[in-house]
Amino acid sequence: MFRHQKELQFEVKVDGPDPMLARQLQEVLGGQFGEMTVMMQYLFQGFNCRGEEKYKDMLMDIGTEEIGHVEMLCALISQLLDGASPEDQADAATDPTMAAIMGGINPQHLIVSGLGGLPTSSTGVPWNGGYIVSSGNLLADMRSNLHAESQGRLQVARIYQMTKDESVRATLRKMLARDRYHQYQWMAAIKELEEKKGVVVPASFPAEAEMESQEQAYEFWNLSDGKESSEGLWATGSAPDGSGDFVYVGEPEPKGQIPKLSVPLESLQHDLNINKSFK
Amino acid sequence: MFRHQKELQFEVKVDGPDPMLARQLQEVLGGQFGEMTVMMQYLFQGFNCRGEEKYKDMLMDIGTEEIGHVEMLCALISQLLDGASPEDQADAATDPTMAAIMGGINPQHLIVSGLGGLPTSSTGVPWNGGYIVSSGNLLADMRSNLHAESQGRLQVARIYQMTKDESVRATLRKMLARDRYHQYQWMAAIKELEEKKGVVVPASFPAEAEMESQEQAYEFWNLSDGKESSEGLWATGSAPDGSGDFVYVGEPEPKGQIPKLSVPLESLQHDLNINKSFK
Amino acid sequence: MFRHQKELQFEVKVDGPDPMLARQLQEVLGGQFGEMTVMMQYLFQGFNCRGEEKYKDMLMDIGTEEIGHVEMLCALISQLLDGASPEDQADAATDPTMAAIMGGINPQHLIVSGLGGLPTSSTGVPWNGGYIVSSGNLLADMRSNLHAESQGRLQVARIYQMTKDESVRATLRKMLARDRYHQYQWMAAIKELEEKKGVVVPASFPAEAEMESQEQAYEFWNLSDGKESSEGLWATGSAPDGSGDFVYVGEPEPKGQIPKLSVPLESLQHDLNINKSFK
Amino acid sequence: MFRHQKELQFEVKVDGPDPMLARQLQEVLGGQFGEMTVMMQYLFQGFNCRGEEKYKDMLMDIGTEEIGHVEMLCALISQLLDGASPEDQADAATDPTMAAIMGGINPQHLIVSGLGGLPTSSTGVPWNGGYIVSSGNLLADMRSNLHAESQGRLQVARIYQMTKDESVRATLRKMLARDRYHQYQWMAAIKELEEKKGVVVPASFPAEAEMESQEQAYEFWNLSDGKESSEGLWATGSAPDGSGDFVYVGEPEPKGQIPKLSVPLESLQHDLNINKSFK
Amino acid sequence: MFRHQKELQFEVKVDGPDPMLARQLQEVLGGQFGEMTVMMQYLFQGFNCRGEEKYKDMLMDIGTEEIGHVEMLCALISQLLDGASPEDQADAATDPTMAAIMGGINPQHLIVSGLGGLPTSSTGVPWNGGYIVSSGNLLADMRSNLHAESQGRLQVARIYQMTKDESVRATLRKMLARDRYHQYQWMAAIKELEEKKGVVVPASFPAEAEMESQEQAYEFWNLSDGKESSEGLWATGSAPDGSGDFVYVGEPEPKGQIPKLSVPLESLQHDLNINKSFK
Amino acid sequence: MFRHQKELQFEVKVDGPDPMLARQLQEVLGGQFGEMTVMMQYLFQGFNCRGEEKYKDMLMDIGTEEIGHVEMLCALISQLLDGASPEDQADAATDPTMAAIMGGINPQHLIVSGLGGLPTSSTGVPWNGGYIVSSGNLLADMRSNLHAESQGRLQVARIYQMTKDESVRATLRKMLARDRYHQYQWMAAIKELEEKKGVVVPASFPAEAEMESQEQAYEFWNLSDGKESSEGLWATGSAPDGSGDFVYVGEPEPKGQIPKLSVPLESLQHDLNINKSFK
Repeated sequence: MFRHQKELQFEVKVDGPDPMLARQLQEVLGGQFGEMTVMMQYLFQGFNCRGEEKYKDMLMDIGTEEIGHVEMLCALISQLLDGASPEDQADAATDPTMAAIMGGINPQHLIVSGLGGLPTSSTGVPWNGGYIVSSGNLLADMRSNLHAESQGRLQVARIYQMTKDESVRATLRKMLARDRYHQYQWMAAIKELEEKKGVVVPASFPAEAEMESQEQAYEFWNLSDGKESSEGLWATGSAPDGSGDFVYVGEPEPKGQIPKLSVPLESLQHDLNINKSFK
Repeated sequence: MFRHQKELQFEVKVDGPDPMLARQLQEVLGGQFGEMTVMMQYLFQGFNCRGEEKYKDMLMDIGTEEIGHVEMLCALISQLLDGASPEDQADAATDPTMAAIMGGINPQHLIVSGLGGLPTSSTGVPWNGGYIVSSGNLLADMRSNLHAESQGRLQVARIYQMTKDESVRATLRKMLARDRYHQYQWMAAIKELEEKKGVVVPASFPAEAEMESQEQAYEFWNLSDGKESSEGLWATGSAPDGSGDFVYVGEPEPKGQIPKLSVPLESLQHDLNINKSFK
Repeated sequence: MFRHQKELQFEVKVDGPDPMLARQLQEVLGGQFGEMTVMMQYLFQGFNCRGEEKYKDMLMDIGTEEIGHVEMLCALISQLLDGASPEDQADAATDPTMAAIMGGINPQHLIVSGLGGLPTSSTGVPWNGGYIVSSGNLLADMRSNLHAESQGRLQVARIYQMTKDESVRATLRKMLARDRYHQYQWMAAIKELEEKKGVVVPASFPAEAEMESQEQAYEFWNLSDGKESSEGLWATGSAPDGSGDFVYVGEPEPKGQIPKLSVPLESLQHDLNINKSFK
Repeated sequence: MFRHQKELQFEVKVDGPDPMLARQLQEVLGGQFGEMTVMMQYLFQGFNCRGEEKYKDMLMDIGTEEIGHVEMLCALISQLLDGASPEDQADAATDPTMAAIMGGINPQHLIVSGLGGLPTSSTGVPWNGGYIVSSGNLLADMRSNLHAESQGRLQVARIYQMTKDESVRATLRKMLARDRYHQYQWMAAIKELEEKKGVVVPASFPAEAEMESQEQAYEFWNLSDGKESSEGLWATGSAPDGSGDFVYVGEPEPKGQIPKLSVPLESLQHDLNINKSFK
Repeated sequence: MFRHQKELQFEVKVDGPDPMLARQLQEVLGGQFGEMTVMMQYLFQGFNCRGEEKYKDMLMDIGTEEIGHVEMLCALISQLLDGASPEDQADAATDPTMAAIMGGINPQHLIVSGLGGLPTSSTGVPWNGGYIVSSGNLLADMRSNLHAESQGRLQVARIYQMTKDESVRATLRKMLARDRYHQYQWMAAIKELEEKKGVVVPASFPAEAEMESQEQAYEFWNLSDGKESSEGLWATGSAPDGSGDFVYVGEPEPKGQIPKLSVPLESLQHDLNINKSFK
Repeated sequence: MFRHQKELQFEVKVDGPDPMLARQLQEVLGGQFGEMTVMMQYLFQGFNCRGEEKYKDMLMDIGTEEIGHVEMLCALISQLLDGASPEDQADAATDPTMAAIMGGINPQHLIVSGLGGLPTSSTGVPWNGGYIVSSGNLLADMRSNLHAESQGRLQVARIYQMTKDESVRATLRKMLARDRYHQYQWMAAIKELEEKKGVVVPASFPAEAEMESQEQAYEFWNLSDGKESSEGLWATGSAPDGSGDFVYVGEPEPKGQIPKLSVPLESLQHDLNINKSFK
């Protein structure tokens, strides 16, 4: 069960209205890597957690914090939209400066949400559940969390460069600092889990299943002309778990067959096969 | 520019028709972490790459390999659907065994694709561009790639357990082996990049911007009852880059204000504010 | 800012595993009218609220309660999936009873979420932000809330009839009771707001704007053959706000023109008009 | 079966081209609460109606009218786009005024639809079936219809304020007047149905099922700090159907357990449980 | 403006309930090529038509007919669902035959729509506006219409084979016959338009623009190993408009550069370029 | 299996930065008819092809070419974005000219992709699998391909008119030329297939099934007032396969019943029918 405290986690202020910035900030509210994404991802991972209690508790701590980040971003966007109005829009038809600003506004901030945050990205695409994952495998999920925080912090940092509003910048710095910690947090959790279970996800796949194709697990296939790719650690070193050495295959050849699908009896079946062999 | 070779990368075989398995395999073809995802993600990262040539070349190598994995999965699904037919479906109305099988089929394999692979997940949801990312930040993107390969390999391993078809299993083992290598590969690239730029994404955010909220970048906020979360490396150790020590805040208090939004002059504006201050 | 308490709002139990029921319950977790919808709708309305504080506080109370309902449903679904396994799936190929059950499972419960709840509907469609609204107009939004609770409770009641698991039923009864209260709650809020502002949304649209077409605001247009529709309160009574009487127009005639769009100079413009008059 | 009459329901005119307004109007054509939504919602409810004939007939009357509203909006948008051209776009690169206007245009009006209406929202998101509902429960559906008309009319009223084009305003006034009537209509239908069946949806849920948790059906849980929410009718009055009195629970405590999910045998099963108890 | 006649265009009957068939038929109601698609596509093309009146009128005729096809399919699906009930679902837990049938049902037919048609595909994905096109170019759109009717009729024919319900088959035969006519219709319109304007869309692209790359407009590039593709009319004949002869390029070589993107000053800009040259 | 060659198929150049054009070009990269659509459509059709080898080979040739077109468009967009920066965005707040340009930028080009191409349309909607089809019926699919190339080339031609950047135009001319050839190619394939199998898809539907409704397969139903539609080839000629003559039905009457759905026992079942007849 959850509870709400009226104070925001951190102070949220703006120097003045800026509807174009409000539109940009929607990306880190309701976009692919916005706060809605990390909030829902951590909450679902926490709700579904079947591992040690400390992981579940940690996921619930941070998932709960992220609900408050969605709250902060809505407060930020609402303040930036204060003062935008339909009348301004009407003036835009004759005033180039106003037209320029209006052209950069998300029209749904005026028409749909009444000057409030929307559950959508900076281009107005609704947030959706396909952005998140909760797999039941802790190592896989911690990697997904590190990825989300990395992309998310990158986007906040870019928006930070895109505004001169010092109050907004002060707010964003708080979020950047938390996102920095969250990256540390997932790295620490990943380190712990890799030490326990090995670095490959899933760790538990039966060893014998890998035997026959062992060699293929260490080969880099050079399928794009040029051999610059041979210069990386992935091509010359050892596997991170020391289980083998990488091999750079400069001239790879396919090992499979030319696929031949059975031809359906089209005269009868609209190009579908009538052979009932799968019964 | 690309070229196609008729042979598959690895041999693809099935023991016999199994439309329920064909439906499950759609997840790793067109689902959130299917082969379409890694193919498109690596290709876009490669096309957009502005860094050292070796990264671009490497992304193109593996992105090109993944097109061939989409090809292999389509071949696998088509073979599993060989022999399914509309007539079988008609029989299902009176035959419980057939009904059971039919209930587990993706109806679009019969109606839409004519016994071929679909660009959709195991529940029939179309693949979409919101599954992938190409950010222009190499470290962020390599983490996204490691996350995708971890979730993807986990799913293939689960499907592996869900079938007794030894030919399918042999095919899946090849893909598991390649996914193992790809995890190694991204780990190696991440290690290289972290050593160059530091572990936090983005590395380049100006140092002075972090000053004021430095403390918040190392605090774990205990926002879910219970203190099991204090037992992890994220709560007690040092930041992975040694820049500070983690602090477990057992009783965190909010540091922000209670937000008060301005009230619009609703009598005139349908609940929208008419204050034009943002002009 | 939010906090999490480990106890669920109400007890959540199941008599035994039932993956088909788990799939059905996804509808009221991540479907159009599931708990994710009311949770996100109330939270966004609360975050964006510019009206009297009591509305904002009330929206935050109930929005916060709904996060806990998402938590309860995840717990319920996880318990129903306990015991489902890939091996069962493998057996399904030869065992009709198992095949029947497997056919009714959401494959993503096995492959994607590892026996946990998903942010998707009963057919596996991801939840999306297009399901919710926060408009800044309190009366419009309270009506949206009443609509969501009505559809949502109906769905829970239907699922209640679809299972014989008495523990699940006991859990659902708690949710039905809360949904009953929430319907009462929105009705009470609507009553209060209608008394203050009138029943038409938005109340504030300027009176003079309605003058010219006043008559059209009370007419029922009979555009489907047959006059059974003349028997309802909408056809014979007065407007709920007493502003006029309804008129049943049995033989309505169009009042507009036959539209004629300008024809573009296609020889030059690929069927686009080159007239630059809008500059 | 349907028939089409060439005349529009009401006259549709514009003073002159205004592609920015055309983009905004897409919201009330193909957005969440646009005319496509009410058209499809009423038609599906009418097609699926199993109640008294008068409801089906009424739904078909109004659903049929709404097809004509989609027609009117397309005519309006096409007229506003008359005169927009690719050449203007080309000029925008060097002319700030033109650039300002072009920045506010939906690029798909030029590239995709050739100066016509699109089945998308003001941000270009395609209309989708997740916006509508037809549940088979008349009271629930009438509430959904009132909600849709309330949000929809609010949006039209906002756009009305956003333009100074008097011809467009005259057209919108017609739509506002019809939307006013449609709100009256659904209110009247709701009143009629509530009197017959009671105010809670679904009315028919067996009484005994509510017994055990009766108390919870009248409690307001104060889960957000502060008690402003105690001032509303929802906290102090009686249920609208007089079945009980509301109780304000100022310090609510959870009544459920701390959830403990079974831990899967991960060494074997990639974090999935192998216990086959659900067979 | 539109009108509705109570009679269906053709008689719709079923032999008995068949919820699995109801699920399959959703594909041709709300799937990619279902009746909703052709209905909305023809209506939007008609509404937006700027060409000769006879095309607009024809599009309105057939678009209006298709609304009636959506109506027929809803009637068909509702009849097939008559008799399905939540109680049956409850029985399914213990009855394998019932479980088999239930496994093949769309759960939303029970939970969401109350035994009625849904605006979704056979896998439950909501219909969306991305399925249709109205481009303002008549020839392009007629080709889109022929494509939609071809895919749509194919799907109906496949479902026809999937059932033994003779009443359903009789209904589908009517739809197949109409879809046959509609294919003829679009072919006739295409023929007329191609004769007027030429076969390439858009016809009006300035001739000089093609000059420089004339040769490339007739070359088949053999980019997949093997030369079976040289056997088709596309490789050896003349262009359909006689403007040139096809050339089979067996060993094609790229004609472009190796792309080199400018490298951003990442130390400052989070991997974004600071060069402001586009101002 | 696929291979990548570093050179682009054709040269890709720009005169200078133009982020507004970059946004527009997203339509032909990741929109409904962009290069991602034809690439994925041809590849899936090729992978799933069960017909003669020459069709499969041809589909693989062109599908492989289209991967290279996605590559070219990404290169084009990246070059147009070179020089856009967050700092410019910050300047936009005070500089009207900059604001105008910024208003027309896709914010995700700055925030999400770091100045690279995105898998989305010009309005930022992610590409999705619902845009493509691979049906297993060659004639149906070739028509889908011709439709996609027609709409796609039309869009490229429109964008061509929308820019004065001569280098971009030169690049687009190459794509227009290839799209011209691809239209020829599908026409040739369609001609070949129609000659073999007849013009109606699917050709193989049993003749006897059409008997009863033969007449309806040649009738044009005039369901929109006015008879301009009688002037086309579809109303007066013969079917393209000579199987019958078209009939213009000026006053069509419905041939079906008024649908009456059974009324559910709502007192028990929440508006769902409890009759278990379908068991």
